[in-house]
Amino acid sequence: MSNPPNPELLSLNTATVRERWNLRRMIEGCARHGIRGISPWRDKLAEMGAKEAAKAIRDNGLAVTGLCRGGMFPGADRRARQAAIDDNLRAIDDAATLEARCLVLVVGGLPTGSKDLAGARTMVRDGIGEVFDHARSAGVPLAIEPLHPMYCADRACVNTLAQALDLCDELDRSASGALGVVVDVYHVWWDPRSRLKSSARRQAPARVPYLRLAGAHHGPAHRPGMMGDGVIDLPLLRSWMEEAGYRGFHEVEILSSGNWWRRDPDEVLVTCRVRHQTVC
Amino acid sequence: MSNPPNPELLSLNTATVRERWNLRRMIEGCARHGIRGISPWRDKLAEMGAKEAAKAIRDNGLAVTGLCRGGMFPGADRRARQAAIDDNLRAIDDAATLEARCLVLVVGGLPTGSKDLAGARTMVRDGIGEVFDHARSAGVPLAIEPLHPMYCADRACVNTLAQALDLCDELDRSASGALGVVVDVYHVWWDPRSRLKSSARRQAPARVPYLRLAGAHHGPAHRPGMMGDGVIDLPLLRSWMEEAGYRGFHEVEILSSGNWWRRDPDEVLVTCRVRHQTVC
Repeated sequence: MSNPPNPELLSLNTATVRERWNLRRMIEGCARHGIRGISPWRDKLAEMGAKEAAKAIRDNGLAVTGLCRGGMFPGADRRARQAAIDDNLRAIDDAATLEARCLVLVVGGLPTGSKDLAGARTMVRDGIGEVFDHARSAGVPLAIEPLHPMYCADRACVNTLAQALDLCDELDRSASGALGVVVDVYHVWWDPRSRLKSSARRQAPARVPYLRLAGAHHGPAHRPGMMGDGVIDLPLLRSWMEEAGYRGFHEVEILSSGNWWRRDPDEVLVTCRVRHQTVC
Repeated sequence: MSNPPNPELLSLNTATVRERWNLRRMIEGCARHGIRGISPWRDKLAEMGAKEAAKAIRDNGLAVTGLCRGGMFPGADRRARQAAIDDNLRAIDDAATLEARCLVLVVGGLPTGSKDLAGARTMVRDGIGEVFDHARSAGVPLAIEPLHPMYCADRACVNTLAQALDLCDELDRSASGALGVVVDVYHVWWDPRSRLKSSARRQAPARVPYLRLAGAHHGPAHRPGMMGDGVIDLPLLRSWMEEAGYRGFHEVEILSSGNWWRRDPDEVLVTCRVRHQTVC
């Protein structure tokens, strides 16, 4: 077992406690439990208002590791695709207000009824290209999140770390830091090409605004669960990231509606803190 | 739309009608519906007996495109791994009796309680290595089936075509034809690296004993369904295989317990014939 991670690097993706807390309670919960980073989701942000949230986050001394989420670029027609662009531009503005370290992009799957996967992937590339200048001038890095291939049709047609890094290379040749990749172990743990160092991409570490360490996986029915449960070797994946030079936050995101979402959020955050030190 | 495929190339994976027919009825059903190939599963084969099945298949003029299945190499201890080896040796003998064109390998996932994915993959490589000589002397090509990454933990830790071809390159450098890859569109459709021609592997077509064209996919809950349903562009994937030189059978395998498994198998086979000509 490698050394336990620095507890200061833990960050809370607010989906983890979304069923029982609003954003203000999430912010205060992080501060109360010594969690230094937070990644809000936009529905909760909209309830509270971005400026109000930014102030509360600042007052509580938290880093905004990311805003979840932009993306969903493919659309059946030009109007649908333009609506997605407009939504991403608003998300970038909110991320700027929060001084978020990135806007996470869940890129979208196939338009309804379509079987044109290559076309959907082109729409993703073009969509990111269309919002990239605005993101850069707003000072908000965009972070492509490769999703597990089981979500290819309906959520995201970027499905491996290599594919996401290829997109970064295409759209941001100079590796300026304005375009990167969110590495979520739940989505990439199975992939023999997820080891950054062996991918011979010298700029890869600079591409990663954060590492999402939470997650578990037994089979198709399992959604991201508590760190340490399931089959993912978290210390190994963390070591791969660190040997490639990564030193950033470790975000926890639990989407386990049947279990953790029902518990007392304070208990969930305590468990996250403990597991971060014992199994990550 | 490309030209419809040669109807003589259709093959039935017997899982498609497993709920309502035994192997003899499957063999006779293929002959009755003009389906020229068959891939039996071992449970049905054991009921009938391999020699009896071989005779019935011969009498009906069918090709055995594959036997399903060997594999499941990883085990928690030496005894479990040896039991898997022994089972694979028996499967090879049955495949030889049937004059099957390959033994399909579903390689196995993580041993219970393990998080050592690299270790499981090593056990797979070693397991194939241990049975390879026997397969070669029996004249039975082994065909590694990469399974969708959502089955990585519990069914197969070989999850992409590239990964399976790497294993072939490692264990059978000369591309002798004794080790290959089953390409099942349900498992590989999402992967941008599934296009053989662009993988710069000149020997790849010689590695593919058959192409499994059936399948559909909307999301994690969907098992392989009837050809044409869902999001997979079958003519495109077939064209990728053919541009790489593939000219073999097109196997249909439907594992849709809630729908096709309940229907009259004769109706299912008629639908397979029609869909093969209209949507593949």
